[in-house]
Amino acid sequence: MKLKMMYSFLNSDLNIVEKELEETIQSKSPLLRQASLHLLQAGGKRIRPVFVLLAGKFGNYDINVIKNVAVALELLHSATLVHDDVIDDAELRRGKPTIKAKWDNRIAMYTGDYILARSLELMTKIENPLAHKILSHTIVEVCIGEIQQIKDKYRFNQNLRDYLRRIKRKTALLIASSCQLGAIAAGVDEEIHKKLFRFGYFVGMSFQITDDVLDFTGTEKDLGKPAGGDLLQGNITLPVLFAMKDENIRKKIERVHESMDREELNELLSIIKNSGAIESSLAVSDRYLEKALLILKELPDNRAKKALRDIAKFIGKRKF
Amino acid sequence: MKLKMMYSFLNSDLNIVEKELEETIQSKSPLLRQASLHLLQAGGKRIRPVFVLLAGKFGNYDINVIKNVAVALELLHSATLVHDDVIDDAELRRGKPTIKAKWDNRIAMYTGDYILARSLELMTKIENPLAHKILSHTIVEVCIGEIQQIKDKYRFNQNLRDYLRRIKRKTALLIASSCQLGAIAAGVDEEIHKKLFRFGYFVGMSFQITDDVLDFTGTEKDLGKPAGGDLLQGNITLPVLFAMKDENIRKKIERVHESMDREELNELLSIIKNSGAIESSLAVSDRYLEKALLILKELPDNRAKKALRDIAKFIGKRKF
Repeated sequence: MKLKMMYSFLNSDLNIVEKELEETIQSKSPLLRQASLHLLQAGGKRIRPVFVLLAGKFGNYDINVIKNVAVALELLHSATLVHDDVIDDAELRRGKPTIKAKWDNRIAMYTGDYILARSLELMTKIENPLAHKILSHTIVEVCIGEIQQIKDKYRFNQNLRDYLRRIKRKTALLIASSCQLGAIAAGVDEEIHKKLFRFGYFVGMSFQITDDVLDFTGTEKDLGKPAGGDLLQGNITLPVLFAMKDENIRKKIERVHESMDREELNELLSIIKNSGAIESSLAVSDRYLEKALLILKELPDNRAKKALRDIAKFIGKRKF
Repeated sequence: MKLKMMYSFLNSDLNIVEKELEETIQSKSPLLRQASLHLLQAGGKRIRPVFVLLAGKFGNYDINVIKNVAVALELLHSATLVHDDVIDDAELRRGKPTIKAKWDNRIAMYTGDYILARSLELMTKIENPLAHKILSHTIVEVCIGEIQQIKDKYRFNQNLRDYLRRIKRKTALLIASSCQLGAIAAGVDEEIHKKLFRFGYFVGMSFQITDDVLDFTGTEKDLGKPAGGDLLQGNITLPVLFAMKDENIRKKIERVHESMDREELNELLSIIKNSGAIESSLAVSDRYLEKALLILKELPDNRAKKALRDIAKFIGKRKF
């Protein structure tokens, strides 16, 4: 089943979210408008808005309220992507030139700031202090995670815990918050919105691990950029950590540097892929997925719950 | 009278704010902690916290509540400075190396993000939706202002309105919000907190114009960096706009570029200073100051009001 089929009952609401996304980043500054629009139109799966809406279905769902949260979370996610691209010096994102490539680093930095600010502004339509505490705490953690990621680059003596903490901050917390904030905006009880947070956290961990595996196993067409980019950038992801358990592979990996030639990199990718590291990584991803599905069982039955289950399973098995 | 003498009755509360500032940016990441601390210790006048506290004196002043707003506004201001330094490629700030100079642009970007996030987190202790709407709107405007400033660099055919709109976003709104949010956190009535906003706005405009004048008239020792930096960077400030009314000076100014030599720049600075542009600029600053003082008259008499008046007057006349 295709991802979009799993929540087709949200289609008209997701269209509203999409329209609102474009309206929110309108600005009298043509430069800001173009750069922001360029970023949004690069697309992406809008998975955070989907989680927001589905979580809202556990309470008093009102699209005119909850759309603000959905748009805010997608904008926040987009803002982190732009700043990421500055850090990673990335030229391509989803097959399109990044803002820093099309304009420059300064524009990318301020476009990120602007989109974040718009996201905050939108969230203030939710007049619930708890929602703002959760969101601001998430942003703090995401920032700490980013700095940690910069510091951890090419640091080959890191361990599994370093990696898990980093992807928690980088990805899982934002998905967890999407679920929780969608629920809170719909007036869901604390017991339920906390479970939705934990569901989102586990799904997010699984999602990021799969993403990190795809950087090894995906095709350039699927990824929208050449494979092996993480390794080349010195990002030590889970497959790398597993592969490095073999001392011989470890020595080869430690020689990775940004300007190494493509052939050499491809050889290293093959070695890692044949080391069993991919399978071990996917097993960790599966464990997180199982935890997510277990929590889901504790939630009331409805169409949204079924969709969340399908999405979680899809995310664990996805190829792009 | 020295600036600090004007609000000496706030001394112990400002010490609390200072301590809280340092505690807020604590992080387990040594890099983030060091970079943030470096930024805060570069000092500055802490004028935004002073405005927050003074505005709070018009209501139910509780330092344990209002300190959160004071710290949040100073952090927000600091965050904009770090990102500014990235944009301006600045090596020095208040006589000390900038974060981008001491570390690099990437660290500066994320330190700014982190400090902003901490600021937001702190503000959520104020459980008043209006406060968050004002703050997030201010951040949006500051971002638009920054992008506008990038676009307006070396754009010599801009006018007074462009300049005023830019400094409104760059400086005045944040000072206005400091006043208004301090008041709101102290439960001040709408009529009063709106007046405090307008007072802050006018003071902020006057403050920035004086700042822009000082970039021509200040000594390297006072400024903590060589004079003329704005012009060299292509920032068209009010003295430049006035000086350009003379066609001959205009032609000279239009030849400004980043790598022009110091001697040539100094000659141009002299020409601008002798053109009457400084006096005209200060006259505009004075008009804003007068408007600020007029609004102040409408506020209830108290020690804070006297301090606000003294500070406003000082800001208009300051030499550093």
